[in-house]
Amino acid sequence: DEAFSFADHSHRRFNPLTGSWVLCSPHRAKRPWQGQVEETTSEQRPAYDPECFLCPGNTRASGAQNDSYTSTYVFANDYAAVHADQPDCSAESLAMVAGEHSSSDLFRVESTRGQCSVVCFSPRHDLTLPELSLGEVCQVIHAWQDIYTKLSADPSIAYVQLFENKGAAMGCSNPHPHGQVWALSAVPSEPAKEIESLRAYHQSHASCLLCTYVRAEEDNAIAGEQSGRIVIQNESFMALVPFWATWPFETMIVAKHHVASIADLVEPQVTHLAEIMLGLTCRYDNMFQCSFPYSMGLHQAPTATHSDASLCHLHMHFYPPLLRSATVRKFLVGFEMMAEPQRDLTAEQAACRLRAQSAIHYKLTLT
Amino acid sequence: DEAFSFADHSHRRFNPLTGSWVLCSPHRAKRPWQGQVEETTSEQRPAYDPECFLCPGNTRASGAQNDSYTSTYVFANDYAAVHADQPDCSAESLAMVAGEHSSSDLFRVESTRGQCSVVCFSPRHDLTLPELSLGEVCQVIHAWQDIYTKLSADPSIAYVQLFENKGAAMGCSNPHPHGQVWALSAVPSEPAKEIESLRAYHQSHASCLLCTYVRAEEDNAIAGEQSGRIVIQNESFMALVPFWATWPFETMIVAKHHVASIADLVEPQVTHLAEIMLGLTCRYDNMFQCSFPYSMGLHQAPTATHSDASLCHLHMHFYPPLLRSATVRKFLVGFEMMAEPQRDLTAEQAACRLRAQSAIHYKLTLT
Ligand SMILES: O=P(O)(O)O[C@H]1O[C@H](CO)[C@@H](O)[C@H](O)[C@H]1O
Ligand SMILES: O=P(O)(O)O[C@H]1O[C@H](CO)[C@@H](O)[C@H](O)[C@H]1O
Repeated sequence: DEAFSFADHSHRRFNPLTGSWVLCSPHRAKRPWQGQVEETTSEQRPAYDPECFLCPGNTRASGAQNDSYTSTYVFANDYAAVHADQPDCSAESLAMVAGEHSSSDLFRVESTRGQCSVVCFSPRHDLTLPELSLGEVCQVIHAWQDIYTKLSADPSIAYVQLFENKGAAMGCSNPHPHGQVWALSAVPSEPAKEIESLRAYHQSHASCLLCTYVRAEEDNAIAGEQSGRIVIQNESFMALVPFWATWPFETMIVAKHHVASIADLVEPQVTHLAEIMLGLTCRYDNMFQCSFPYSMGLHQAPTATHSDASLCHLHMHFYPPLLRSATVRKFLVGFEMMAEPQRDLTAEQAACRLRAQSAIHYKLTLT
Repeated sequence: DEAFSFADHSHRRFNPLTGSWVLCSPHRAKRPWQGQVEETTSEQRPAYDPECFLCPGNTRASGAQNDSYTSTYVFANDYAAVHADQPDCSAESLAMVAGEHSSSDLFRVESTRGQCSVVCFSPRHDLTLPELSLGEVCQVIHAWQDIYTKLSADPSIAYVQLFENKGAAMGCSNPHPHGQVWALSAVPSEPAKEIESLRAYHQSHASCLLCTYVRAEEDNAIAGEQSGRIVIQNESFMALVPFWATWPFETMIVAKHHVASIADLVEPQVTHLAEIMLGLTCRYDNMFQCSFPYSMGLHQAPTATHSDASLCHLHMHFYPPLLRSATVRKFLVGFEMMAEPQRDLTAEQAACRLRAQSAIHYKLTLT
């Protein structure tokens, strides 16, 4: 009788953080691709671009002028999705769109407050995260710590979402290296789901889901390198392709010991995190010899005095779309939107390919 | 005091079908866009393309040959994501990737069986769904009914996902008008979530969530056309922008009376559904005078003898990515992936723009 093989047979894996399933069809990577091809820009950008809204000293679309910054630089987003000050949504307001049904549980609305900022990672227009120095990535982490700490003192903010969209394929409209902060008066859906899962796991196991997962992946890595999912690690952090990854080369950077938020990191943890961020994104770029697009974000404790804060375990998700080359991406569309996320290679195969990449950025080896 | 305004103030709306929230920031539509621009193909395709894998009589990449079909045409997908026959995932198999942790609830795997087919909507390579005749769309619906009915007799199939990816922006690799069927041995995550919500609603209200929602939207439309979300309707079906829509011009076609599956439709309901599908997709194309990309899919009762079948209420989701023009799309990326879906116009604004479109396809008015 034929035995089940992860590399040949379709299977679903359960994501315990979000409580949903992923369909994995590894044999499907063989099908021919005749669809959309992504653009690659091998064009060398200037260190300073007078037209860029994010370069030091430049004037933005809104008319505001950037400082002549020399390190990381944080400023308020001119097109913020949320504002600090706005009216509540009263029953009369709701009646404008829900009529006599405004008290029905099918028309639930909350007024949402908050604030949005932009974090320039570097004054240099021509660099990206994997091309920064260790010290510069530490500065980015320090900027995140300052933002998180400052917003934690604001009782109107419940959650601080730190993230980066990198590359045109991920909706990024400016190649200047930068991330964003959207801080909201409510805990958004994704972290809320994760907190629910962490709480349920804690209730039934009296331990942290992610602490347990990190230990298990350490054991598995020792047992068999080929089937392991860890890409790189140091004393404080681990970058791995989670067992339940959705995007082809999705990874998670997770604290190896229970830490609720970025604000709790002290040295050498900040340097350790910077090291793993650099090591991971450098391997991403090396895989297809291109600036690897992704959306990346931090999940951590809600701010203000949130009762679930200590349940949270700091981690970062990286969702990169590329599948086969610098120009062929995975589309999570029809089936994925209507039914269930689907992937074309196993998490183990993805981890194995990422581990095989050099720790030295390919651009440094070009002459 | 300033009153809350849906068109100016940020708010979250709750999606009762999936149990999650959507952030709506209507003022954000004003920001400048410097990011990725989609390609548009105004190029006229031939009615028959000798290179197309889907045209009648042609040989596919796999070597199989298409029939010389003249109506709809269904065949097995050569690169199926799931297969009818494969081994179960035993504890020994799981140990290959989860080591000593294979019984842990952090490493849950299910072997997944099923089958995948392709449904050519028409032999004509140069047409798309909105350009078919009413009779041709009825044939597509009849093909769906046959597939659903046939698979319902197969005890190894739990759910039949019918869907279409239209346009290169939605990962479609061949412009020949076609949809897909992925039938699985398990109910996938999205319909499973909806069934949970329908069940919970039924338990607390002794009525169907979608029946109630349809009635409420009819009331609201009568109360105020400008704030209504219905795009078009007839006796049997309604196309509307749901109150909790995520994609800019997301719509739902919903049966106005409780019907569990496509197989339950009889005349004149089939013709009514075809009419609404045509009317909606025609307005989509007219909005930006282009072949409007989307992913579309049906949600309905699980097959085999599923205890929840009668809870289900037939509906179709349309998720189109375009936001401002034929070339500027919405990206659901960083914040949306990490935190919560976000939209830049209200559902009411989207519905109002769709309603304003002509019922006659723009190509028919070009000379
Ligand atoms: O099957 P197709 O059209 O080749 O492929 C498309 O639809 C599938 C189902 O939604 C996706 O998994 C693929 O990523 C997408 O490119
Ligand atoms: O804020 P940006 O970079 O202009 O915009 C990008 O990121 C946002 C947050 O993920 C998304 O809502 C936008 O759709 C995307 O284009």
